[in-house]
Amino acid sequence: MNDKQLVAQHAVQQVQSGMIVGLGTGSTANFFIEELARRQQQEGLKFKAVASSVVSTIKAQQLGLPLLAINHIDGLDLYVDGADEVAPDLTLLKGRGYDLVREKLLAKAADSFLVLIDASKKVKRIGENFPIPIEVTPFAWKLVQRSVAAIGGHGTLRQTPNQDGLSVTSHGSLVLDVVFEASIDGKTLNERLNAIPGVVAHGIFCGLTRAVFCGRDGQVEEHWA
Amino acid sequence: MNDKQLVAQHAVQQVQSGMIVGLGTGSTANFFIEELARRQQQEGLKFKAVASSVVSTIKAQQLGLPLLAINHIDGLDLYVDGADEVAPDLTLLKGRGYDLVREKLLAKAADSFLVLIDASKKVKRIGENFPIPIEVTPFAWKLVQRSVAAIGGHGTLRQTPNQDGLSVTSHGSLVLDVVFEASIDGKTLNERLNAIPGVVAHGIFCGLTRAVFCGRDGQVEEHWA
Repeated sequence: MNDKQLVAQHAVQQVQSGMIVGLGTGSTANFFIEELARRQQQEGLKFKAVASSVVSTIKAQQLGLPLLAINHIDGLDLYVDGADEVAPDLTLLKGRGYDLVREKLLAKAADSFLVLIDASKKVKRIGENFPIPIEVTPFAWKLVQRSVAAIGGHGTLRQTPNQDGLSVTSHGSLVLDVVFEASIDGKTLNERLNAIPGVVAHGIFCGLTRAVFCGRDGQVEEHWA
Repeated sequence: MNDKQLVAQHAVQQVQSGMIVGLGTGSTANFFIEELARRQQQEGLKFKAVASSVVSTIKAQQLGLPLLAINHIDGLDLYVDGADEVAPDLTLLKGRGYDLVREKLLAKAADSFLVLIDASKKVKRIGENFPIPIEVTPFAWKLVQRSVAAIGGHGTLRQTPNQDGLSVTSHGSLVLDVVFEASIDGKTLNERLNAIPGVVAHGIFCGLTRAVFCGRDGQVEEHWA
């Protein structure tokens, strides 16, 4: 069993009967969805699920999980998802290619937001390994790019994988991938990006994490906020 | 001449040859657009205009103003618009029914953002006369409503004028009209609303105003930030 499977198996023990559980998107989140389906089948565990993307909706449907629509819920008990980077204060970088608005909405609404990673995702500062994705209203992209430059970021529009067009999110936004100077910490950046008009959402998740479960060499480390 | 016309006439003197000028939306902004057209015709003043809404685009086209698209500009010299409320620190409430994202984008990008009001718009605190409009991604509205409640706001979805449906913005967002407890100041509210996922834009304009020109009994008061 790899470390991603291991943390997923560990995390699924957090689910209790009657919970509403948010499903993340990505390779580690997929293992969690599979573990959830296994507990449903083997133990008859009762819960409702709400998906953070079209991808996780389809995965959950294929495995027979009972789904609620995100606009039908007032809140949820637990949201379990992966992350691209985790800083020591449990600030996250997320959203390389998925649905940032929905993910951040679930992270905020959940009583407990649980993040599953392997050790490669731990960083000293947000932005160490990846640019910060910023979803922008299409007509706003140039002015947002300028605002981002004013706070020390260099942003380029995300291309489609084969480089023949621009990436468009599920909300019809464009994505600026922004590299910031290493001196700016994630918390400050979060506040500054929140204040830029035309930004629909960005990849920094600050003050939302309840716990990070990290798989390393066949062991699970728990980091609680 | 009423006070709205008076401030518009006063403000148009701020426009200099070669400027890019942002056009606001609403009754006072309309007077400004007319004054700009007059200076173009009578004085041969050269400038380019960028509109903050479909409404101001049409008005400018009808009067023959040279328009630039908002996604073609890197910035602008001056943005002139009205406001629904102006607090003593020049924080504004805007956007009862127009295009919040575009207006805030221009206010942020302008070297100088000039606000034209009559004396009835002056308030002691933001939210004194009107609810705060919050544009939300449609699927997010219930969870945003809950987040807003957690910071002391009571929000209801804006209806169409004849009450037979929901108001939809030019970006396809819904609008929560939110009444907050009087104890929360505009600056704090601005930061808290910026941090709520699913919020596309909101009506508090904080730290963006360069000057307010206020018409009162045939005189113009200038308040510079």
